[in-house]
This record gives sequence, structure tokens and C-alpha cells, in this order.
Amino acid sequence: MTHVFDEAIAVAAKPDGVFHATTHDAYDNMVGPFGGITAATVINALQQHPEILGNPLALTINYAAPVANGTWDLRPVIVRTNRTNQHWTFTIEQEGSVVSTGSAVFGIHRETWADTEAQRPDAPDPESVAAVDFPDFIAWARNYDKRFVVGGLEDGKSEDSTSTVWLRDLPERPLDYPSLTSMADAFFPRVFLRHGTYMPAGTITLTTYFHATPDELAAHGSGHVLGTARAARFGNGHFDQDGQLWGGDVLLATTHQLVYFKDPQG
Amino acid sequence: MTHVFDEAIAVAAKPDGVFHATTHDAYDNMVGPFGGITAATVINALQQHPEILGNPLALTINYAAPVANGTWDLRPVIVRTNRTNQHWTFTIEQEGSVVSTGSAVFGIHRETWADTEAQRPDAPDPESVAAVDFPDFIAWARNYDKRFVVGGLEDGKSEDSTSTVWLRDLPERPLDYPSLTSMADAFFPRVFLRHGTYMPAGTITLTTYFHATPDELAAHGSGHVLGTARAARFGNGHFDQDGQLWGGDVLLATTHQLVYFKDPQG
Repeated sequence: MTHVFDEAIAVAAKPDGVFHATTHDAYDNMVGPFGGITAATVINALQQHPEILGNPLALTINYAAPVANGTWDLRPVIVRTNRTNQHWTFTIEQEGSVVSTGSAVFGIHRETWADTEAQRPDAPDPESVAAVDFPDFIAWARNYDKRFVVGGLEDGKSEDSTSTVWLRDLPERPLDYPSLTSMADAFFPRVFLRHGTYMPAGTITLTTYFHATPDELAAHGSGHVLGTARAARFGNGHFDQDGQLWGGDVLLATTHQLVYFKDPQG
Repeated sequence: MTHVFDEAIAVAAKPDGVFHATTHDAYDNMVGPFGGITAATVINALQQHPEILGNPLALTINYAAPVANGTWDLRPVIVRTNRTNQHWTFTIEQEGSVVSTGSAVFGIHRETWADTEAQRPDAPDPESVAAVDFPDFIAWARNYDKRFVVGGLEDGKSEDSTSTVWLRDLPERPLDYPSLTSMADAFFPRVFLRHGTYMPAGTITLTTYFHATPDELAAHGSGHVLGTARAARFGNGHFDQDGQLWGGDVLLATTHQLVYFKDPQG
């Protein structure tokens, strides 16, 4: 049986180089699809491209306009293939209009000196943290097991925008680059936590750096991923949000986004 | 007299919508121009575009191939203009070949709830920190007054990749979006600090979020900017690098990049 995530990120390659995708209502957000599933679909498509070099290293996706529920076309362009990396740009189009743009870097993992400086946040085992539900109007969140170590919305407003949360596909699914891409956008907007409430907000641009190797993803399997996210500055209608995704002691990905928001009373 | 930075970021708008630029040897890096000056030139050009909406909010630039010294063409595309923001993509071309790609978001600053969560690093006044020089082969660095609070290369190798540094254009120049863009790339690759030496490394993709308003930049004037940067994970030929730029207590910009490196002996 196909996992709902795989249904949602499925693409059909067309002879003209375009990938055809369809939004899946299991990953609906308040308006249109969850941005994470759109980004994951891009990575899934590029991984299937016959000329792809290596694995995802970086992805930037710009949400220029709302994606309408229905079909969309991904138009990828290979800009340049170097010895160890490959640069792509892409657009996402609906009815001839560009709704998203972006760029991706794929590449080869070479053995080099290595060290992780970032510190994994302290967290009790996922089994000892209660799973929570999001409201029904956030359909995509039903496809994640979510266990907040700190910064769950059920705790009300907080002076600190940090959320640390155990995340896992529901039902379980082995972690791969598309699912990591989607999880990088699974942190609700930090402004919700500061105000203790849902409010109008949406990602404008999202950048994720993939640190995990295919071997690390395989070793991780379908276990819980520990995510942590925090904002640096809110104001003038925008804020940024930085996140990390950890699999055990392995920093799988770092992720950054700029988010639009309106005051609840605004 | 024109400041050398303004000479370096100068562009000529052509009737076909292309901006024509020329590399400036004062901003040379080890190979080709300093990436920060290329990014700053893009922001400078977009700000001059007759259809620009508001001010820079986000920039992603992908360094796909080395930029050769000489002339280059910036080909900007307005993807979408929303009520409060505007999405752009661009390519940088030399002799018909794309050497860089990228995307930018410009927009309007609206008055909203505001807070800065990030903490400015502790630093003594710039006057009490010694200015340092970089080696001659890093020409661009001569155009910055650089005073390392922590993490200067002259201290040798460090177990912590953090550099905190007072930065200012040399000669002094009022801070604006292009100069902030350039400073966001003025942190040397973090792998140098971990190894205490220069080694082969280069930015693959750079994303900067601009938090500063025009009024904040004007209030800052030509004072020192406090920059801080750190890596999260090194390995497999790449590492990430996150930075902040502060003007007094104002978080002016946050910046992220993915960097390619080779082991010194590799």
C-alpha cells in the first residue's frame, strides 16, 4: 500500500522535461497545500531526473503566490554541472502562471574532515512525551506524530519562540530526502507561539541545507526526528525562523525561512 | 569622490532590462571577485529597477561557476508583485553562460508587533579592539575595517567556529542595503578557523534576510556593524555557516550559506 506521503509527492515526468504534480488533500494547509509538501515534491522530482548528480545539498523555494488545489507543473532547469555539484533552478506553474520559484544544489558527498558544532537540544525520549493534535483546519499535521518537548501551542503564549518537537511520519515511513524536506517546514510560524494563537502568517521563502548522507538516512530508518526552531527578529510584517532536524546525534538538516505575518487585530 | 564600494557595485541599465556590471579589482578574492560584492551589485541593480516594490527582504544567490574578472550581465525577472511583496529571479551571465542564479524578495515594511529574540554577542567597543589585516591575496578585505572580538584567524585554530567581528567600510560609508548585503558574506569560511589556516573553500549558495528598515539604516549611519558567524555541521565536503549583523541593538540582517571545502592535505 502506498504511503500517503508518497501519494502526495508523486510526479509524472513529461517528454518536455516538465514534471506534473497534483495537490493532495491530506496535506492541505489553511489556504492551499502545506508548503513542506510542495518543497518535498520538488526534491522528489529532481531525484528522478535522469541527469541528476548525487544528492540534495540545498534547496530554496519562494512561495510567490498561493498554490491552488489541483494540478501543477514543475519546470526544472540544469544551470550547471560541476565536478562535485550541480545547480538547478525551477518554477512551479499553474494555468500558465508562476506560483513558486526556486533553486537547488545537488552534489556528491566526499570524505573529508568532519565535526558537528551545533548542540542537539535536550529532550526526553519520544515515548515519554505526549503526542498532540493540531486543529482540524491544519490537515497536513495529521500526517505527523508530534510530541512537543517545549513550545507547543497548547501551552499558550511564550516569551521564547523556541519549539523543540519529536516528529515522525504517521504512519511510520523510512526517512528520505523528500520527507526531510517536508519536516523542515513542519514548524508552525513562530509568531503563533509568541501570541499563543493562530494568526495570519505564511512562508515567503524557505532555504534548507541537507547535511545527511544517504547512509545516515538509511541508518535513521523511521525513527522520530528531533526538530527545533526559533525566530531571531519579528517586526514590520515579517520574521525569520531557523530550524534544525536531528536524527539521534546526527544533524540531518538546517533550515531557514522568512515569514509574512499580520497582527491578530491588524 | 566616489567610494570604491560604489564604483564596484555600479551598474548600467540597458534598454532590454539587463543590467551591465564590471568586476572591480579592489574587491578581488582568491579566485575572481568576492561573492559579497556580486550579491551587493544585484541588490543595487534591483533597487534601481523602475518597477521595484519597497526594500530588500530576502536574497538567495547561487554561485554556480567562478565569475571571471571583467564584465557581466544581470538579467532580472519580476515573477510576481503582491500587495506588500514582490518576487524576483535573476541570472548572472558572462559570455552567454550562466555563472550565478538567484532570487530576491522585496517588500513594504508595515507596522506590526515587533520583538528581537536573538541576543547581540557581548563585545567591547570597537575602539578598544585592534584592527587586523588579511593577507594580500584577499584584496576585498582591505576595504573593511575588521576588529575581531573572538575568532580571528591570527589566534590560530579553534574548537569553536564562532567569529564575532566589528566591520566597517574603509573608508567609512553610510550603511545601506548593498553594503549590508556585502557584509553578510564578509565572514571568512568557518573551516579556516577550525583548522587555523586558509584552505580551499567557496560559497555555493548564500541567503540573507534583511530585517533593517531604511530608517534603521539611516540611524546607523557609518558606524561599526557587529557581525557574528558560526557553522553547525562540517562534513562530506561541505559545511553551513549562519551569521547575524547588528547595528547597536538592532538586528540588521541574518544570513546563511552552504560552503564547499577540501581538506588541506586532500
